Amino acid sequence: MSTNTVFLNDTFIGTDQASLLITDLSIQRGYGIFDFFKTVNGQPIFLDDHIERFYNSAKNMHLHVSQSPAELKKIIGELMQRNNLPDSGIKITLTGGYSEDAYALPPTQNLIITQVPLIIPQGLQAEGITLATYVYQRQLSAMKTLDYSMAIWLQPFIEENKADDVLYHFNGLVKETPRANLFIVTHEGEVITAKSDILSGVIRKNILNLEDSGFQISARDFTLAELYNASEAFLTSTTKNILPVLKVDGKEIGNGKAGRITAQLYTLLLDKIR
Amino acid sequence: MSTNTVFLNDTFIGTDQASLLITDLSIQRGYGIFDFFKTVNGQPIFLDDHIERFYNSAKNMHLHVSQSPAELKKIIGELMQRNNLPDSGIKITLTGGYSEDAYALPPTQNLIITQVPLIIPQGLQAEGITLATYVYQRQLSAMKTLDYSMAIWLQPFIEENKADDVLYHFNGLVKETPRANLFIVTHEGEVITAKSDILSGVIRKNILNLEDSGFQISARDFTLAELYNASEAFLTSTTKNILPVLKVDGKEIGNGKAGRITAQLYTLLLDKIR
Repeated sequence: MSTNTVFLNDTFIGTDQASLLITDLSIQRGYGIFDFFKTVNGQPIFLDDHIERFYNSAKNMHLHVSQSPAELKKIIGELMQRNNLPDSGIKITLTGGYSEDAYALPPTQNLIITQVPLIIPQGLQAEGITLATYVYQRQLSAMKTLDYSMAIWLQPFIEENKADDVLYHFNGLVKETPRANLFIVTHEGEVITAKSDILSGVIRKNILNLEDSGFQISARDFTLAELYNASEAFLTSTTKNILPVLKVDGKEIGNGKAGRITAQLYTLLLDKIR
Repeated sequence: MSTNTVFLNDTFIGTDQASLLITDLSIQRGYGIFDFFKTVNGQPIFLDDHIERFYNSAKNMHLHVSQSPAELKKIIGELMQRNNLPDSGIKITLTGGYSEDAYALPPTQNLIITQVPLIIPQGLQAEGITLATYVYQRQLSAMKTLDYSMAIWLQPFIEENKADDVLYHFNGLVKETPRANLFIVTHEGEVITAKSDILSGVIRKNILNLEDSGFQISARDFTLAELYNASEAFLTSTTKNILPVLKVDGKEIGNGKAGRITAQLYTLLLDKIR
């Protein structure tokens, strides 16, 4: 267990000391939100995107953040100084707070900011990963909630299917993995990611916003058959950057290797991170 | 805040002292299960049903209970002695446990048993309640998980609709409220509760198992239209026993008063509790 410093509500303390009373709505009802970003070489990546999403998740889940975005950034800066971890992952969590009856949403929430060492590979991981699909639609999907019940529950399913992760689809449409967005490249060279009822990832957003990439990149819903028939597929997330998907449900995507367009998009993404 | 005694993993401590480290999977991912039963006059009600469901929920959610059912009952007995609350609600919670990476399910879970004062009305609450409906299917619905994200999130919706609670329906079929099962009585006198993709409540089970009630009581799926057209409707739960539903979405059920068959079933239920 790490002994890094954590920010809890208004104080900096050791991870080993950081606890919540059992009346918190996360413990009682699984209720809360979070966001997660990386630091590379001491620099937070896409911090404004993550802060914006954090406040949006909070607001849409009826939770109140006591700090302004500027105050939050200042706390994050101090946490980074104390931990001195240039390459790290920083998680900002806002739990439901201490509830009198373990059900009603209290006016005050609990804020937790943790930092752990994290080195993101700075090259395209050409070996890629394999996915197994599962029928599921995330609830309250536009907000980054604490609800990963299905993801945690499916850990044995992933193992049984000898896959690296699970991919959700619902009503015939491909959605997302528990912690990443999926893109496919069609045989016509179109780059697509799911549009409806998903969490809008920050890397996803930055790929969609690439200018002058030379590719046709867009968000639209697509089917599992389109994924099976794609020429390339890859995941995007803060910890993965871009990660090739080589097999889904045992079927090779394209030629079963990391794709050419995937590699080019990865280079363009790295330009935005450096 | 109550200062009752709580059982946490292996010790009895005050509620104010009972806390979990922030690495627990309930705080990180909303993962865990629980069960809840009442004591009336110092006697736990339907304890075996609740214990059985607790172990089933744990097993199906890949969680491990360190104690045997007999050991758990012994701990509950000691907790009741210490708190000396003859009429109470006792909640047994099993959280995901302390996870190294805030995602993988650890081999050991955290057990929390709390007791709070609770007096259940011993007469049919003839004033009843009103419900507002919402399209939703609970995930992992057969297990009593900590996931009440939708229920907590809908608290403002319930207020806006001037209702007492929300009723879920999905694909045209009535399901349940966040913390209770729903029964309807048809104009033919048939007593029905939803069958598919719901949590099987202990009071629901005991109503379904009533023998020689003289009523035709069964579990089968029914539509929202059938509810609107029912002659009676009521909720069942540990804290509600039987609670008449007088209005749904502003429409009166039957004559908008607690029904005759509802009252008779309530009497039969009380016979099992006393």
